[in-house]
Amino acid sequence: MILCDIGNTTFHFLLGKNHKKYSIEEKLPKFDEKIYFVSVNKKATKKLMKANPDAVNMKKYLDFKTEYKGQGIDRVLACMFTKNAVIVDAGSAITVDIMKKGVHKGGFILLGLSSFIKAYPKISKKLKFDFEKKINLDKIPLQTKDAIQYAMMKSIILPIKDVSKNKNIIFTGGDGKLLSTYFENSVYKKDLIFENMKRIIDANNCIA
Amino acid sequence: MILCDIGNTTFHFLLGKNHKKYSIEEKLPKFDEKIYFVSVNKKATKKLMKANPDAVNMKKYLDFKTEYKGQGIDRVLACMFTKNAVIVDAGSAITVDIMKKGVHKGGFILLGLSSFIKAYPKISKKLKFDFEKKINLDKIPLQTKDAIQYAMMKSIILPIKDVSKNKNIIFTGGDGKLLSTYFENSVYKKDLIFENMKRIIDANNCIA
Repeated sequence: MILCDIGNTTFHFLLGKNHKKYSIEEKLPKFDEKIYFVSVNKKATKKLMKANPDAVNMKKYLDFKTEYKGQGIDRVLACMFTKNAVIVDAGSAITVDIMKKGVHKGGFILLGLSSFIKAYPKISKKLKFDFEKKINLDKIPLQTKDAIQYAMMKSIILPIKDVSKNKNIIFTGGDGKLLSTYFENSVYKKDLIFENMKRIIDANNCIA
Repeated sequence: MILCDIGNTTFHFLLGKNHKKYSIEEKLPKFDEKIYFVSVNKKATKKLMKANPDAVNMKKYLDFKTEYKGQGIDRVLACMFTKNAVIVDAGSAITVDIMKKGVHKGGFILLGLSSFIKAYPKISKKLKFDFEKKINLDKIPLQTKDAIQYAMMKSIILPIKDVSKNKNIIFTGGDGKLLSTYFENSVYKKDLIFENMKRIIDANNCIA
């Protein structure tokens, strides 16, 4: 069994315990095992289905109630099976979703770290900087490179703190590990989406 | 007397009570009156001086102590004459500076509203939206266009709230008026930089 999470820019495969990523532009191989996938990208879905016609779109197995209109299927998957928590998927965008007593209460979409990093130098060459992973958020900055990085981290962290307060926070996605270090009541689950895909496959006995 | 604030992209003139802006690319006229200017843009400074050789760079009249390295002269001007307040200049970038007992304590640089608005659709076409000026920040969003605008406003507002607490906040710059509506303890001073330029000119008797 192979799992695949199709995003805006990447095919993300889980082959046993191995992760394998392909750009949306790359040629995909024909895999030997059956593929179960979720996708937010119609064009990429067609591409996968062309190379692997018996791949299974898991959309029909997802049973998730929300008043939110247009929630991406990756966000739905990240939220499933969580009773009370804030779920943060930190990729090119950072989606933040609130689950309360097993009900999805809505969410919001922050710019991802890479978007912030790209946006500053577009304002002025003077705002170019090399991103450092450890930033002191307790001291008001006294030079430009700190002034930018302090601001961008606060722009991401404070809106998440604002809705999480005493709630637990589950981080996933490429920048989830880094962001989770700024929150006490948090866990980082690298494979949250794949884990939830497996749970749904198990529950539905839909493995061929 | 004509005042001019030269930014990264614009010459901003105050001619009596009239504001006049020229793009950095545009041809500048020769003005009849003496020009007093501040600038963060060397190339544009040269252009102004070429068309108006007797224009006065006010840099030498600015007496402002700070440990901050590389603070733009527009930020220095915005902070001068303020004892206790947070000063927010909301343009293409949003500079936030903290003055305490007349001493500059440092500051940080948020992305401007226009930067946020441009950055979202670059992540995915699905994140295109039309910016609305009135956004409900008390309700967790239930659709994508709200999810984006809630997040971007929180990304700007919360870092400013975080450092302002009981302090007064002085907003200036193109988006300062809109942002000030989200803060109780705030004033909007459209011409803060020009007003402070005038105060310095008066104090130094440097009018020809």
